[in-house]
Amino acid sequence: MSRPKILVSGHIAWANKEVYELLEPFGDIVWLDGVPTRNDFKNVFLPQHPNIVGIYRHNSSSDRIGVYDKELVDMLPSSVKFIAHNGAGYDQIDVAACRARGIQVSNTPGAVDTATATTALYLLISCFRQFAKAELNARARNWKNGLLPAHDPDGKILGIVGYGGIGGVLAQRCRDSFGMKVIYYNPRPRTDAPAWAEYRPTLVQLLKEADVVSLHCPLREETRGLIGATEFEQMKKGAILINTARGAVVDEKAMIGALKSGHLYAAGLDVYPSEPHITEELYSFPNVTLLPHMGTETEESQKSMEVAAMKCLVKAFETGEIGNRVA
Amino acid sequence: MSRPKILVSGHIAWANKEVYELLEPFGDIVWLDGVPTRNDFKNVFLPQHPNIVGIYRHNSSSDRIGVYDKELVDMLPSSVKFIAHNGAGYDQIDVAACRARGIQVSNTPGAVDTATATTALYLLISCFRQFAKAELNARARNWKNGLLPAHDPDGKILGIVGYGGIGGVLAQRCRDSFGMKVIYYNPRPRTDAPAWAEYRPTLVQLLKEADVVSLHCPLREETRGLIGATEFEQMKKGAILINTARGAVVDEKAMIGALKSGHLYAAGLDVYPSEPHITEELYSFPNVTLLPHMGTETEESQKSMEVAAMKCLVKAFETGEIGNRVA
Repeated sequence: MSRPKILVSGHIAWANKEVYELLEPFGDIVWLDGVPTRNDFKNVFLPQHPNIVGIYRHNSSSDRIGVYDKELVDMLPSSVKFIAHNGAGYDQIDVAACRARGIQVSNTPGAVDTATATTALYLLISCFRQFAKAELNARARNWKNGLLPAHDPDGKILGIVGYGGIGGVLAQRCRDSFGMKVIYYNPRPRTDAPAWAEYRPTLVQLLKEADVVSLHCPLREETRGLIGATEFEQMKKGAILINTARGAVVDEKAMIGALKSGHLYAAGLDVYPSEPHITEELYSFPNVTLLPHMGTETEESQKSMEVAAMKCLVKAFETGEIGNRVA
Repeated sequence: MSRPKILVSGHIAWANKEVYELLEPFGDIVWLDGVPTRNDFKNVFLPQHPNIVGIYRHNSSSDRIGVYDKELVDMLPSSVKFIAHNGAGYDQIDVAACRARGIQVSNTPGAVDTATATTALYLLISCFRQFAKAELNARARNWKNGLLPAHDPDGKILGIVGYGGIGGVLAQRCRDSFGMKVIYYNPRPRTDAPAWAEYRPTLVQLLKEADVVSLHCPLREETRGLIGATEFEQMKKGAILINTARGAVVDEKAMIGALKSGHLYAAGLDVYPSEPHITEELYSFPNVTLLPHMGTETEESQKSMEVAAMKCLVKAFETGEIGNRVA
């Protein structure tokens, strides 16, 4: 029997050396580089590599072979035991299908906390201060003519939906920097949240109180469309929405309605329901700051996420249980 | 003799009620509203108001009557004793000319610290993370294609040039939020600076060490062109420059040279030498974040600055010495 194989399913931007240092001791490295399509992956690549044991996965692999839905998971050889996903959100993997096949799945939660929280902080400042709008205005050679009054974030109320690693970093920064009051909604209170982060047992209680609502929950069936028309109505008039989680957590049509009516003062978006496509109408709102999913797009964070995902596999090979296991 | 007069020289955006509540007890309020030009101010307005004692001044008055240079200060009636300037920077007032005429001048330093520091924080994040560039890219329907690797601010070295109220707030926020190391250069060490803010006795020492240089010094003859070709060379390759102070503190040609050569990784600018004009070439650099002097442009900060300037006048009328006296 030949040596086990480890598939690198997706792009490695920075930690190419580490692929060999960390993973090669446990198996031969195979890359997706020559695989142009999902059909090719299924009909050519997998038959050539029957003994893949571990997979390092990045969302960039979906450009070629699509997401790891049930169909793709079910076509993996029975030798596959571990999928280490590079990223905090692993909604591109059907974890139920993995579980059914006895495949362990991991993510890289902590590695992205500060970078994503920095993205949310930037969007929050941009929305309160109308800075992205001001820059568009300046670049249109209009200086600050016609800009509406902006606001200081200082002393306002930040509502975190999904208080975890990223929400916690954002909360701490907003409290330290702007003296903001922090409230949060999770299905259950977090025992590790600081005392100053006040729990609200229902989403509506949070929405009625927050000056700015920042989303940090994973995309699951129960969070799809979590912020819809009813929720926008429950928000204060003049509130701000920040989304650095997943586009589909928000009902985009309802958001556009709340922007049109002026109920929403501003929105800061890093994520969209059909990335990399951005719904054309969103470009028409100058009070919407639009980033192209830059959440963790830094050399430092990308590298540390790549290494973190590889280390989950290392733990899997050493102990039989993948690090940061989510399924 | 008629009642003393108080001139409101410039626009009041938010604190119109306070003009009457705070200042009218000490004199009749006169507005610049009917005065279209400097000549009109000199030849019509001032002769009609010979007994102006105090002036509330805002930079917006320069649209009509120009800056408070020696010529304008010398044409003021001899009754004028106090000029309360709304703003931290008072480079539009010739304080030597005021001093020579026995006119006391005040500014509003603390009122703008947090708002300007928030502007600097936004620019700093935008530069490290290349967010303004990313938004331009997204708005050009290019998603994140072609963007260069960005960086996390976390753990980098922040160099503050001119550690005062604004620089101090920025330093504290960058330390708290990103664990940045803070160094600063002032002509003399600040006795009120925290121990973690390390003093560098020369500008060149700061420039050689900092990953990001943020300017917070006033515009004076000795700071005009402070950051020139030599200073850009002294900065690290890949460094970032943030300017929320005054445009003329930087030699703009030298900055453009450093951007062209790639020695400067990015620049975040809120101020320009000839505002509201922005030098056309600056628009060509996507790694330059351009704000139209938004430093303190918020409802909350504008109002608190307006009230702070008025209170300087109140103190002047009550005690004979203007509050926050700078000359």
